[in-house]
Amino acid sequence: MADKLFYNGAVLTMDDSGRVLKPGYVYVTDDTIREVGEWRPDDRLDRLRASCSFTYDAEGKAIVPGLINAHTHLFQTYMRGVSDDFPLADWLREIVWPLSLAMEPDDFYLAALVGCIENLKSGATYLMDHHYIHTSAENTAGVLRAFVDSGIRGHLARGGSDLAGEPRLREPEERVFAATDELLDRWEGAASGRVSIALGPLNLYGCSRPFLESAARYGRERGLISHVHVAETRGQIDNTLERFGLRNLELLDEVGLLGERTQVVHGVWLDDGELETIRDRRASVVHCPVSNMYLASGVARVPEMRRLGINVALGTDGPGSNNCQDNLEVLKFTACLHKVHALDSTLLPPADVLGMATRGGARAMGRERDLGSLEPGKKADVVVVDLLKPHISPVHRVSSALVYNANGNDVELVMVGGRIVVEGGRCTLVDEREVLLRAQARVNALRAKLAPAYPIFAVES
Amino acid sequence: MADKLFYNGAVLTMDDSGRVLKPGYVYVTDDTIREVGEWRPDDRLDRLRASCSFTYDAEGKAIVPGLINAHTHLFQTYMRGVSDDFPLADWLREIVWPLSLAMEPDDFYLAALVGCIENLKSGATYLMDHHYIHTSAENTAGVLRAFVDSGIRGHLARGGSDLAGEPRLREPEERVFAATDELLDRWEGAASGRVSIALGPLNLYGCSRPFLESAARYGRERGLISHVHVAETRGQIDNTLERFGLRNLELLDEVGLLGERTQVVHGVWLDDGELETIRDRRASVVHCPVSNMYLASGVARVPEMRRLGINVALGTDGPGSNNCQDNLEVLKFTACLHKVHALDSTLLPPADVLGMATRGGARAMGRERDLGSLEPGKKADVVVVDLLKPHISPVHRVSSALVYNANGNDVELVMVGGRIVVEGGRCTLVDEREVLLRAQARVNALRAKLAPAYPIFAVES
Repeated sequence: MADKLFYNGAVLTMDDSGRVLKPGYVYVTDDTIREVGEWRPDDRLDRLRASCSFTYDAEGKAIVPGLINAHTHLFQTYMRGVSDDFPLADWLREIVWPLSLAMEPDDFYLAALVGCIENLKSGATYLMDHHYIHTSAENTAGVLRAFVDSGIRGHLARGGSDLAGEPRLREPEERVFAATDELLDRWEGAASGRVSIALGPLNLYGCSRPFLESAARYGRERGLISHVHVAETRGQIDNTLERFGLRNLELLDEVGLLGERTQVVHGVWLDDGELETIRDRRASVVHCPVSNMYLASGVARVPEMRRLGINVALGTDGPGSNNCQDNLEVLKFTACLHKVHALDSTLLPPADVLGMATRGGARAMGRERDLGSLEPGKKADVVVVDLLKPHISPVHRVSSALVYNANGNDVELVMVGGRIVVEGGRCTLVDEREVLLRAQARVNALRAKLAPAYPIFAVES
Repeated sequence: MADKLFYNGAVLTMDDSGRVLKPGYVYVTDDTIREVGEWRPDDRLDRLRASCSFTYDAEGKAIVPGLINAHTHLFQTYMRGVSDDFPLADWLREIVWPLSLAMEPDDFYLAALVGCIENLKSGATYLMDHHYIHTSAENTAGVLRAFVDSGIRGHLARGGSDLAGEPRLREPEERVFAATDELLDRWEGAASGRVSIALGPLNLYGCSRPFLESAARYGRERGLISHVHVAETRGQIDNTLERFGLRNLELLDEVGLLGERTQVVHGVWLDDGELETIRDRRASVVHCPVSNMYLASGVARVPEMRRLGINVALGTDGPGSNNCQDNLEVLKFTACLHKVHALDSTLLPPADVLGMATRGGARAMGRERDLGSLEPGKKADVVVVDLLKPHISPVHRVSSALVYNANGNDVELVMVGGRIVVEGGRCTLVDEREVLLRAQARVNALRAKLAPAYPIFAVES
């Protein structure tokens, strides 16, 4: 991989002081950032440029840390848009489950590969995939192979549920933990450390209390991140209140699942006490604004979380409820949603939103030491966004242009751990067109197969 | 311009029955659509294809009517992002006014040209520009020349205000109407009918009651569309209540400005009675969800408006409060905002949202007879969107893919009145790069000039 120099662009370091270097440079050797500074070419910098095997003149472009998509379900690229305008429970029962159960092991690889490409091309160098369809052990391996083949940094939370609404998705806890152990043995640290495994108890209404207690013990013993859907809808609050007389976060805390390595996904319906508990336990919240809007789940109390000092990361959620995974689009939705919800336009300035998508994600993943900003010694996860576009330019403030103007299609180059995986807006490791055509053919075949029993799959619109 | 055939794509006709032709074709001669149908090549269709001077195989692409951006301020491309996180009143006083007043006549042409390119490239073939900076009569001409040069269909609402907060923007009514008469003489119907003029009383708090009454008379005499900012913020309701004891729509109605040719822009804070008045007067509402969110203005009652039978069109608003003009992005914000606001995921299905951006816009413009759908006899305003992208594909439903997945960068081809103005994602009539570089240089110069008095223009971030 050798030496690489990105220079003459606007560098958003996302370091502690929020330095923006206009123009700046980022110098990388192997998988690590070595230097970040202002680009005022002198003898030393000229020599540096001459010595590098790869140089990139980023004039008119922004150079930013790789975004971290802290929550998705990659297999749902197969179910974009088929399920618009349904409430969550119906959406699961009528569309996501039937289609998920009809998917074959190869489909999970293909669907996840589309999803990894999509994430990379919209600036995410690292994603957390919550995978909960275990009709075959090969499904999960398919997702992990997609991490490897696309070049993304991927974390797979092995989903598990003993009370899932769909009986074929229920598993006893022993099976969930045995499968997770296998994944840890085979995949943890694979692909030069790009692949990691986490624990993913599906949610609180799909898991029994003993299951959650065992999961907490299991995760603690192995030092795993726990990634759990919590308080996504009002109905979920009623569920734990009725079963245990506890609100969602109270239950999560009582079973021992709330700690520094916990990712509270969604966290929409939380009261003041629950927010304080999250803060006290130093857990992270993963906010997925587009999905929360699309499914009409509600508006998470993100500005208050941040005021309390809670770490908030951002996620696209799965393409079944977004319906894309445009990590730059999420930034604009985040800012705009909270401004209008609180009727306060001063909330969540661009730098704060970018901070959630970079440093916030890194902290949620326990990787704040080596990811989340452009600083010497950190991993070389770097994204270049072209700003010389008619929907972005002229630019006053680079952070604003990234949050409000740029979208995934403006990403020019993506580097993960020093390896360039998107260049000129195209994936370097995968034939995108071939993958997309293959995925569409498979989706067409699955639609035809499902249509007799589930007429929604016959609708053309 | 001769004959053109677009075939083998998914045609969203947006006709009364909402036909989607998969695959379908659109056949155009000169500036008019002649045929729309299913693409099942037979002898006749083969001959048609062979006879056309331009043919386009739209496999994997959507063919849709041109979107109509019913509210923007093009000159604000010069002020993207400089003003994030301000409340509306401060945003005007501290940023929009000083920068607007510093702009020179050539800047209005250049800023508007960037804005027209941006609109075309995100699928808008027709826009309504509310222009209210009249430091020179040449400012307005610059915007109109940008319509002509870019190839877009443009409607300019000549803004006017006798009580504007910024004294240099105040004009007596005689001057406003004289200037509008000049514009009508010189520009109405220019560029093969692509250019039109409307009346744009700025808003209710910036205009005296006599000014509004005269405007109503003037507009009625000349048969003009009246395009007015109404009920954008809660403060605006208090303003007319205090001055006249009337809510915004009550005042608009009393002065005679509310009729079939009225565009109520924003209409966020309207009570039940005001909604009924709009319905009874057959006026249109122009909804700008991104701007209303960005400025924290509030959430317009769009689902209720539609239930009442009020025509709703969509707008980006100016790039000072969005900060882009991505007409496809507006679709997703529209659907998502209203779902989460009402906590009802069944609201505003994709076809309804697309309907607002096409037929709704056409009706607001008084052009439902010749614009807004792909039907024989209508003007050939046609947009082709590539769906074979990793953030869009696989596709289950084309309407959903357009609303939730596609963004402006996915627009491949745009035709306005039979003339191709975007092809292969590039403007055919304008050198985009040259225009953008020139605009950035001018913005940099204006920032340097303003920074001593307005320190925000010195901030780099």
